[in-house]
Amino acid sequence: MDEVKVIEIKKSVFAENGREADELREYLKEKGVFLLNLMSSPGSGKTTTLISTINAIKDKIRVAVMEADIDSDVDAVKIKEATGIESIQLHTGGMCHLDAEMTRQGLDNLPLDKIDLAILENVGNLVCPAEFDTGSCRNAMILSVPEGHDKPLKYPLMFSVCDVVLINKVDVMPYFNFDMDKCVEYIHMRNPKALVFPICALSGEGVDAFAGWLLKEVAGWKA
Amino acid sequence: MDEVKVIEIKKSVFAENGREADELREYLKEKGVFLLNLMSSPGSGKTTTLISTINAIKDKIRVAVMEADIDSDVDAVKIKEATGIESIQLHTGGMCHLDAEMTRQGLDNLPLDKIDLAILENVGNLVCPAEFDTGSCRNAMILSVPEGHDKPLKYPLMFSVCDVVLINKVDVMPYFNFDMDKCVEYIHMRNPKALVFPICALSGEGVDAFAGWLLKEVAGWKA
Repeated sequence: MDEVKVIEIKKSVFAENGREADELREYLKEKGVFLLNLMSSPGSGKTTTLISTINAIKDKIRVAVMEADIDSDVDAVKIKEATGIESIQLHTGGMCHLDAEMTRQGLDNLPLDKIDLAILENVGNLVCPAEFDTGSCRNAMILSVPEGHDKPLKYPLMFSVCDVVLINKVDVMPYFNFDMDKCVEYIHMRNPKALVFPICALSGEGVDAFAGWLLKEVAGWKA
Repeated sequence: MDEVKVIEIKKSVFAENGREADELREYLKEKGVFLLNLMSSPGSGKTTTLISTINAIKDKIRVAVMEADIDSDVDAVKIKEATGIESIQLHTGGMCHLDAEMTRQGLDNLPLDKIDLAILENVGNLVCPAEFDTGSCRNAMILSVPEGHDKPLKYPLMFSVCDVVLINKVDVMPYFNFDMDKCVEYIHMRNPKALVFPICALSGEGVDAFAGWLLKEVAGWKA
Protein backbone atom coordinates (compact mmCIF):
# COMPACT_ATOMS: atom_id res chain seq x y z
CA MET A 1 0.00 0.00 0.00
CA ASP A 2 1.17 3.52 -0.77
CA GLU A 3 2.09 5.77 2.12
CA VAL A 4 0.41 9.16 2.31
CA LYS A 5 1.12 12.20 4.40
CA VAL A 6 -1.30 12.54 7.32
CA ILE A 7 -1.86 16.02 8.76
CA GLU A 8 -3.46 16.44 12.19
CA ILE A 9 -5.58 19.57 11.80
CA LYS A 10 -5.76 21.95 14.76
CA LYS A 11 -8.86 23.83 15.78
CA SER A 12 -8.99 27.36 14.37
CA VAL A 13 -8.16 30.27 16.61
CA PHE A 14 -9.70 32.87 14.30
CA ALA A 15 -13.14 34.18 15.08
CA GLU A 16 -13.85 35.65 11.65
CA ASN A 17 -13.98 32.76 9.26
CA GLY A 18 -15.48 34.86 6.46
CA ARG A 19 -12.44 37.14 6.37
CA GLU A 20 -10.04 34.21 6.61
CA ALA A 21 -11.81 32.57 3.68
CA ASP A 22 -11.58 35.71 1.53
CA GLU A 23 -7.89 36.04 2.32
CA LEU A 24 -7.29 32.42 1.41
CA ARG A 25 -9.03 32.94 -1.95
CA GLU A 26 -6.83 35.97 -2.66
CA TYR A 27 -3.74 33.93 -1.81
CA LEU A 28 -4.88 31.11 -4.10
CA LYS A 29 -5.54 33.63 -6.89
CA GLU A 30 -1.97 34.91 -6.59
CA LYS A 31 -0.64 31.37 -6.63
CA GLY A 32 -2.83 30.45 -9.60
CA VAL A 33 -4.36 27.51 -7.74
CA PHE A 34 -8.08 26.72 -7.96
CA LEU A 35 -9.61 25.14 -4.85
CA LEU A 36 -12.71 22.95 -5.16
CA ASN A 37 -14.56 22.00 -1.99
CA LEU A 38 -16.42 18.70 -2.41
CA MET A 39 -19.09 17.79 0.14
CA SER A 40 -21.64 15.01 0.65
CA SER A 41 -23.15 12.49 3.06
CA PRO A 42 -21.09 9.50 4.17
CA GLY A 43 -21.17 6.83 1.50
CA SER A 44 -22.40 8.91 -1.44
CA GLY A 45 -19.28 8.11 -3.44
CA LYS A 46 -16.99 11.13 -2.98
CA THR A 47 -13.76 9.16 -3.32
CA THR A 48 -14.88 7.15 -6.35
CA THR A 49 -16.14 10.34 -8.02
CA LEU A 50 -12.79 12.01 -7.38
CA ILE A 51 -10.88 9.09 -8.88
CA SER A 52 -12.99 9.13 -12.09
CA THR A 53 -12.76 12.92 -12.34
CA ILE A 54 -9.02 13.10 -11.71
CA ASN A 55 -8.32 10.39 -14.27
CA ALA A 56 -10.33 12.43 -16.80
CA ILE A 57 -8.33 15.65 -16.24
CA LYS A 58 -4.88 14.75 -14.92
CA ASP A 59 -3.24 14.83 -18.37
CA LYS A 60 -4.51 18.38 -18.91
CA ILE A 61 -3.89 20.08 -15.53
CA ARG A 62 -1.89 19.34 -12.38
CA VAL A 63 -4.11 18.16 -9.52
CA ALA A 64 -3.64 17.40 -5.81
CA VAL A 65 -6.19 16.16 -3.29
CA MET A 66 -6.75 16.76 0.43
CA GLU A 67 -8.89 14.08 2.04
CA ALA A 68 -10.50 15.24 5.26
CA ASP A 69 -11.61 12.54 7.64
CA ILE A 70 -12.17 12.18 11.33
CA ASP A 71 -9.85 9.21 11.43
CA SER A 72 -8.20 6.71 9.05
CA ASP A 73 -6.27 7.38 5.85
CA VAL A 74 -8.03 4.88 3.57
CA ASP A 75 -9.32 7.56 1.17
CA ALA A 76 -6.00 9.33 0.57
CA VAL A 77 -4.27 5.99 -0.02
CA LYS A 78 -7.04 4.87 -2.40
CA ILE A 79 -6.79 8.07 -4.46
CA LYS A 80 -3.02 7.94 -4.65
CA GLU A 81 -3.10 4.31 -5.77
CA ALA A 82 -5.85 4.83 -8.35
CA THR A 83 -4.63 8.08 -9.92
CA GLY A 84 -0.96 8.49 -9.02
CA ILE A 85 -1.46 12.12 -8.02
CA GLU A 86 -0.37 13.82 -4.79
CA SER A 87 -2.92 13.02 -2.10
CA ILE A 88 -2.73 13.93 1.58
CA GLN A 89 -4.97 13.05 4.48
CA LEU A 90 -6.29 15.67 6.90
CA HIS A 91 -7.38 14.37 10.29
CA THR A 92 -9.95 16.61 11.92
CA GLY A 93 -9.70 14.92 15.31
CA GLY A 94 -13.44 14.42 15.57
CA MET A 95 -14.39 17.83 14.15
CA CYS A 96 -17.33 17.67 11.77
CA HIS A 97 -16.21 20.25 9.22
CA LEU A 98 -13.27 22.31 7.95
CA ASP A 99 -13.15 26.10 8.01
CA ALA A 100 -10.78 28.35 6.06
CA GLU A 101 -7.96 28.24 8.57
CA MET A 102 -8.10 24.45 8.76
CA THR A 103 -8.12 24.27 4.97
CA ARG A 104 -5.04 26.49 4.87
CA GLN A 105 -3.24 24.06 7.21
CA GLY A 106 -3.86 21.41 4.56
CA LEU A 107 -2.80 23.62 1.64
CA ASP A 108 0.46 24.41 3.45
CA ASN A 109 1.32 20.75 2.95
CA LEU A 110 0.73 20.77 -0.83
CA PRO A 111 3.27 21.94 -3.45
CA LEU A 112 1.16 24.92 -4.57
CA ASP A 113 3.75 26.08 -7.12
CA LYS A 114 3.39 22.78 -8.96
CA ILE A 115 -0.41 22.41 -9.11
CA ASP A 116 -3.35 24.07 -10.87
CA LEU A 117 -6.18 22.48 -8.92
CA ALA A 118 -6.49 21.41 -5.29
CA ILE A 119 -9.56 19.41 -4.36
CA LEU A 120 -10.72 19.25 -0.76
CA GLU A 121 -12.83 16.22 0.07
CA ASN A 122 -14.67 17.58 3.10
CA VAL A 123 -15.95 15.48 6.03
CA GLY A 124 -18.95 13.29 5.09
CA ASN A 125 -21.79 15.38 6.53
CA LEU A 126 -24.63 17.41 4.98
CA VAL A 127 -24.94 19.80 7.89
CA CYS A 128 -21.81 21.37 9.36
CA PRO A 129 -19.53 21.70 6.30
CA ALA A 130 -22.21 23.86 4.65
CA GLU A 131 -21.88 26.45 7.41
CA PHE A 132 -18.18 27.18 6.94
CA ASP A 133 -16.63 28.90 3.95
CA THR A 134 -13.39 26.96 3.38
CA GLY A 135 -11.93 29.61 1.11
CA SER A 136 -12.72 27.48 -1.93
CA CYS A 137 -13.30 28.98 -5.39
CA ARG A 138 -16.30 26.73 -5.95
CA ASN A 139 -18.37 24.30 -3.87
CA ALA A 140 -19.65 21.03 -5.24
CA MET A 141 -21.66 18.30 -3.59
CA ILE A 142 -22.72 14.75 -4.32
CA LEU A 143 -26.18 13.42 -3.67
CA SER A 144 -26.49 9.70 -4.37
CA VAL A 145 -29.67 8.10 -5.68
CA PRO A 146 -30.17 5.78 -2.65
CA GLU A 147 -30.33 8.83 -0.35
CA GLY A 148 -33.56 9.99 -2.00
CA HIS A 149 -34.68 12.98 -4.04
CA ASP A 150 -36.07 14.84 -1.02
CA LYS A 151 -32.70 15.80 0.48
CA PRO A 152 -32.71 19.43 -0.80
CA LEU A 153 -35.85 19.91 1.32
CA LYS A 154 -34.16 18.57 4.43
CA TYR A 155 -30.64 20.01 4.14
CA PRO A 156 -31.39 23.41 2.58
CA LEU A 157 -28.14 25.21 3.40
CA MET A 158 -25.93 22.56 1.79
CA PHE A 159 -27.80 22.86 -1.50
CA SER A 160 -27.84 26.68 -1.28
CA VAL A 161 -24.06 26.99 -1.02
CA CYS A 162 -23.18 24.56 -3.82
CA ASP A 163 -22.45 25.66 -7.38
CA VAL A 164 -22.66 22.10 -8.64
CA VAL A 165 -24.68 19.06 -7.55
CA LEU A 166 -23.53 15.67 -8.80
CA ILE A 167 -26.26 13.05 -8.65
CA ASN A 168 -24.31 9.83 -8.26
CA LYS A 169 -25.21 6.13 -8.58
CA VAL A 170 -27.71 6.73 -11.40
CA ASP A 171 -27.13 3.09 -12.41
CA VAL A 172 -29.25 1.91 -9.48
CA MET A 173 -32.18 4.24 -10.26
CA PRO A 174 -34.41 1.26 -11.23
CA TYR A 175 -34.12 -0.14 -7.69
CA PHE A 176 -34.95 3.04 -5.81
CA ASN A 177 -37.92 5.35 -5.65
CA PHE A 178 -35.93 8.33 -6.94
CA ASP A 179 -37.60 11.07 -9.02
CA MET A 180 -34.87 12.91 -10.96
CA ASP A 181 -37.16 15.73 -12.14
CA LYS A 182 -38.36 16.40 -8.61
CA CYS A 183 -34.79 16.30 -7.34
CA VAL A 184 -33.65 18.92 -9.86
CA GLU A 185 -36.72 21.03 -9.03
CA TYR A 186 -35.91 20.88 -5.27
CA ILE A 187 -32.24 21.71 -5.91
CA HIS A 188 -33.24 24.79 -7.92
CA MET A 189 -35.63 25.86 -5.15
CA ARG A 190 -32.53 26.16 -2.96
CA ASN A 191 -30.19 27.52 -5.63
CA PRO A 192 -31.61 28.43 -9.05
CA LYS A 193 -28.10 28.66 -10.55
CA ALA A 194 -26.85 25.26 -9.40
CA LEU A 195 -25.58 23.02 -12.19
CA VAL A 196 -26.74 19.42 -11.94
CA PHE A 197 -24.72 16.52 -13.38
CA PRO A 198 -26.16 12.98 -13.16
CA ILE A 199 -23.24 10.53 -12.97
CA CYS A 200 -22.23 6.96 -12.22
CA ALA A 201 -18.80 7.39 -10.68
CA LEU A 202 -18.09 3.67 -10.79
CA SER A 203 -18.57 3.30 -14.56
CA GLY A 204 -17.53 6.88 -15.34
CA GLU A 205 -20.89 7.69 -16.99
CA GLY A 206 -21.51 11.45 -17.00
CA VAL A 207 -18.18 12.28 -15.38
CA ASP A 208 -16.82 13.94 -18.54
CA ALA A 209 -19.43 16.71 -18.36
CA PHE A 210 -18.41 17.53 -14.78
CA ALA A 211 -14.70 17.28 -15.70
CA GLY A 212 -15.30 19.71 -18.60
CA TRP A 213 -16.95 22.22 -16.28
CA LEU A 214 -14.07 21.90 -13.82
CA LEU A 215 -11.39 22.44 -16.51
CA LYS A 216 -13.18 25.56 -17.67
CA GLU A 217 -13.43 26.91 -14.12
CA VAL A 218 -9.73 26.30 -13.45
CA ALA A 219 -8.77 28.01 -16.72
CA GLY A 220 -10.96 31.00 -15.83
CA TRP A 221 -9.41 31.27 -12.38
CA LYS A 222 -5.87 31.22 -13.74
CA ALA A 223 -6.64 33.69 -16.56
CA MET B 1 -52.05 16.15 5.09
CA ASP B 2 -52.00 15.72 8.86
CA GLU B 3 -50.83 18.63 10.95
CA VAL B 4 -48.06 17.99 13.43
CA LYS B 5 -46.70 20.02 16.29
CA VAL B 6 -43.42 21.74 15.39
CA ILE B 7 -41.07 22.69 18.25
CA GLU B 8 -38.28 25.22 17.67
CA ILE B 9 -35.43 23.88 19.82
CA LYS B 10 -33.28 26.42 21.66
CA LYS B 11 -29.55 26.06 22.13
CA SER B 12 -28.62 24.52 25.48
CA VAL B 13 -27.37 26.76 28.24
CA PHE B 14 -25.93 23.90 30.28
CA ALA B 15 -22.22 23.22 30.14
CA GLU B 16 -22.35 19.73 31.58
CA ASN B 17 -24.24 17.60 29.13
CA GLY B 18 -23.24 14.34 30.82
CA ARG B 19 -24.96 15.32 34.06
CA GLU B 20 -28.02 16.62 32.22
CA ALA B 21 -28.26 13.32 30.36
CA ASP B 22 -28.06 11.27 33.57
CA GLU B 23 -30.76 13.41 35.17
CA LEU B 24 -32.99 12.99 32.14
CA ARG B 25 -32.59 9.19 32.33
CA GLU B 26 -33.55 9.23 36.03
CA TYR B 27 -36.62 11.32 35.20
CA LEU B 28 -37.60 8.90 32.41
CA LYS B 29 -37.13 5.95 34.77
CA GLU B 30 -39.53 7.57 37.26
CA LYS B 31 -42.04 8.20 34.48
CA GLY B 32 -41.64 4.66 33.13
CA VAL B 33 -40.79 5.94 29.66
CA PHE B 34 -38.03 4.34 27.58
CA LEU B 35 -36.17 6.69 25.21
CA LEU B 36 -34.51 5.31 22.09
CA ASN B 37 -32.12 7.57 20.18
CA LEU B 38 -31.96 6.62 16.49
CA MET B 39 -29.11 7.98 14.39
CA SER B 40 -27.82 7.61 10.81
CA SER B 41 -26.60 9.39 7.68
CA PRO B 42 -29.07 11.35 5.58
CA GLY B 43 -31.06 9.01 3.37
CA SER B 44 -30.30 5.73 5.14
CA GLY B 45 -34.00 5.12 5.78
CA LYS B 46 -34.61 6.27 9.36
CA THR B 47 -38.21 7.32 8.78
CA THR B 48 -39.16 4.20 6.82
CA THR B 49 -37.52 2.01 9.48
CA LEU B 50 -39.47 3.81 12.20
CA ILE B 51 -42.75 3.31 10.36
CA SER B 52 -42.16 -0.46 9.96
CA THR B 53 -41.01 -0.79 13.57
CA ILE B 54 -43.86 1.24 15.04
CA ASN B 55 -46.44 -0.72 13.08
CA ALA B 56 -44.92 -3.94 14.49
CA ILE B 57 -45.18 -2.81 18.14
CA LYS B 58 -47.93 -0.22 18.44
CA ASP B 59 -50.57 -2.77 19.48
CA LYS B 60 -48.35 -3.93 22.36
CA ILE B 61 -46.96 -0.68 23.78
CA ARG B 62 -47.73 3.05 23.52
CA VAL B 63 -45.24 4.88 21.32
CA ALA B 64 -44.53 8.51 20.39
CA VAL B 65 -41.91 9.92 18.05
CA MET B 66 -39.80 13.08 18.00
CA GLU B 67 -38.41 13.87 14.55
CA ALA B 68 -35.40 16.16 14.69
CA ASP B 69 -34.60 18.07 11.55
CA ILE B 70 -32.88 21.28 10.63
CA ASP B 71 -35.93 22.42 8.76
CA SER B 72 -39.18 20.99 7.30
CA ASP B 73 -41.76 18.75 8.96
CA VAL B 74 -42.07 16.10 6.25
CA ASP B 75 -40.87 13.25 8.48
CA ALA B 76 -43.23 13.89 11.40
CA VAL B 77 -46.18 14.19 9.03
CA LYS B 78 -45.18 10.98 7.21
CA ILE B 79 -44.93 9.02 10.48
CA LYS B 80 -48.25 10.30 11.78
CA GLU B 81 -49.98 9.43 8.51
CA ALA B 82 -48.43 5.97 8.24
CA THR B 83 -48.79 4.83 11.86
CA GLY B 84 -51.41 7.05 13.50
CA ILE B 85 -49.23 7.59 16.56
CA GLU B 86 -48.28 10.89 18.19
CA SER B 87 -45.41 12.43 16.24
CA ILE B 88 -43.85 15.83 16.75
CA GLN B 89 -41.19 17.69 14.79
CA LEU B 90 -38.17 19.27 16.49
CA HIS B 91 -36.47 22.05 14.54
CA THR B 92 -32.83 22.43 15.47
CA GLY B 93 -32.42 25.73 13.63
CA GLY B 94 -29.34 24.56 11.76
CA MET B 95 -27.78 22.72 14.71
CA CYS B 96 -26.26 19.39 13.73
CA HIS B 97 -27.18 17.33 16.78
CA LEU B 98 -29.34 17.19 19.90
CA ASP B 99 -27.98 17.11 23.42
CA ALA B 100 -29.84 16.12 26.60
CA GLU B 101 -31.32 19.55 27.29
CA MET B 102 -32.57 19.86 23.72
CA THR B 103 -34.06 16.37 23.93
CA ARG B 104 -35.85 17.35 27.15
CA GLN B 105 -37.42 20.33 25.32
CA GLY B 106 -38.89 17.79 22.92
CA LEU B 107 -40.05 15.39 25.67
CA ASP B 108 -41.82 18.28 27.42
CA ASN B 109 -44.14 18.33 24.42
CA LEU B 110 -45.05 14.63 24.61
CA PRO B 111 -47.73 13.11 26.89
CA LEU B 112 -45.24 11.13 29.00
CA ASP B 113 -47.94 9.72 31.29
CA LYS B 114 -49.58 8.05 28.31
CA ILE B 115 -46.60 6.46 26.56
CA ASP B 116 -44.13 3.63 27.20
CA LEU B 117 -41.62 4.41 24.47
CA ALA B 118 -40.39 7.69 23.00
CA ILE B 119 -38.23 7.45 19.90
CA LEU B 120 -35.95 10.32 18.95
CA GLU B 121 -35.02 10.43 15.28
CA ASN B 122 -31.80 12.43 15.53
CA VAL B 123 -30.41 14.75 12.82
CA GLY B 124 -29.08 12.83 9.79
CA ASN B 125 -25.35 12.95 10.49
CA LEU B 126 -22.76 10.32 11.48
CA VAL B 127 -20.47 12.76 13.25
CA CYS B 128 -21.97 15.24 15.70
CA PRO B 129 -24.91 13.28 17.18
CA ALA B 130 -22.43 10.62 18.35
CA GLU B 131 -20.69 13.17 20.58
CA PHE B 132 -23.71 14.13 22.68
CA ASP B 133 -25.50 11.88 25.16
CA THR B 134 -29.19 12.71 24.61
CA GLY B 135 -30.26 11.05 27.86
CA SER B 136 -31.56 8.06 25.91
CA CYS B 137 -31.81 4.59 27.45
CA ARG B 138 -30.33 3.00 24.31
CA ASN B 139 -28.73 4.24 21.08
CA ALA B 140 -29.43 2.63 17.73
CA MET B 141 -28.16 3.53 14.29
CA ILE B 142 -28.89 2.62 10.71
CA LEU B 143 -26.22 1.95 8.12
CA SER B 144 -27.66 1.37 4.65
CA VAL B 145 -26.06 -0.97 2.13
CA PRO B 146 -25.40 1.75 -0.52
CA GLU B 147 -23.24 3.65 2.00
CA GLY B 148 -20.68 0.83 2.04
CA HIS B 149 -19.36 -1.65 4.59
CA ASP B 150 -16.33 0.51 5.49
CA LYS B 151 -18.26 3.14 7.45
CA PRO B 152 -17.35 1.79 10.93
CA LEU B 153 -13.71 2.49 9.99
CA LYS B 154 -14.47 6.09 9.06
CA TYR B 155 -17.00 7.11 11.72
CA PRO B 156 -15.65 5.20 14.73
CA LEU B 157 -17.39 7.11 17.53
CA MET B 158 -20.88 6.62 16.06
CA PHE B 159 -20.44 2.85 15.99
CA SER B 160 -18.86 2.84 19.48
CA VAL B 161 -21.82 4.53 21.15
CA CYS B 162 -24.55 2.41 19.53
CA ASP B 163 -26.08 -0.64 21.20
CA VAL B 164 -27.75 -1.71 17.97
CA VAL B 165 -26.79 -1.33 14.31
CA LEU B 166 -29.54 -1.88 11.74
CA ILE B 167 -28.16 -2.65 8.28
CA ASN B 168 -30.89 -1.39 5.99
CA LYS B 169 -31.70 -1.82 2.27
CA VAL B 170 -30.40 -5.41 2.18
CA ASP B 171 -32.67 -5.94 -0.83
CA VAL B 172 -30.22 -3.99 -3.02
CA MET B 173 -27.15 -5.99 -1.88
CA PRO B 174 -26.78 -7.56 -5.37
CA TYR B 175 -26.22 -4.12 -6.91
CA PHE B 176 -23.60 -2.87 -4.48
CA ASN B 177 -20.16 -4.00 -3.48
CA PHE B 178 -21.18 -4.57 0.15
CA ASP B 179 -19.50 -7.25 2.27
CA MET B 180 -21.83 -8.10 5.19
CA ASP B 181 -19.25 -10.22 7.06
CA LYS B 182 -16.65 -7.45 6.86
CA CYS B 183 -19.22 -4.89 7.96
CA VAL B 184 -20.14 -6.92 11.06
CA GLU B 185 -16.43 -7.44 11.79
CA TYR B 186 -15.76 -3.66 11.55
CA ILE B 187 -18.79 -2.87 13.75
CA HIS B 188 -17.53 -5.27 16.42
CA MET B 189 -14.05 -3.70 16.24
CA ARG B 190 -15.74 -0.49 17.44
CA ASN B 191 -18.19 -2.11 19.84
CA PRO B 192 -17.93 -5.85 20.52
CA LYS B 193 -21.35 -5.90 22.21
CA ALA B 194 -23.29 -4.18 19.39
CA LEU B 195 -26.25 -6.15 18.11
CA VAL B 196 -26.56 -6.19 14.32
CA PHE B 197 -29.92 -6.59 12.56
CA PRO B 198 -29.98 -6.76 8.74
CA ILE B 199 -33.31 -5.34 7.54
CA CYS B 200 -35.24 -4.07 4.55
CA ALA B 201 -37.39 -1.32 6.05
CA LEU B 202 -39.47 -0.95 2.88
CA SER B 203 -40.61 -4.61 2.77
CA GLY B 204 -40.42 -5.12 6.54
CA GLU B 205 -37.88 -7.96 6.22
CA GLY B 206 -35.93 -8.40 9.46
CA VAL B 207 -37.82 -5.66 11.30
CA ASP B 208 -39.51 -8.13 13.65
CA ALA B 209 -36.18 -9.12 15.22
CA PHE B 210 -35.40 -5.48 15.99
CA ALA B 211 -38.95 -4.87 17.22
CA GLY B 212 -38.61 -7.89 19.53
CA TRP B 213 -35.39 -6.52 21.00
CA LEU B 214 -37.03 -3.12 21.52
CA LEU B 215 -40.09 -4.60 23.28
CA LYS B 216 -37.82 -6.53 25.63
CA GLU B 217 -35.75 -3.41 26.42
CA VAL B 218 -38.86 -1.33 27.14
CA ALA B 219 -40.26 -4.06 29.43
CA GLY B 220 -36.93 -4.24 31.30
CA TRP B 221 -36.82 -0.47 31.77
CA LYS B 222 -40.34 -0.35 33.17
CA ALA B 223 -39.82 -3.37 35.48
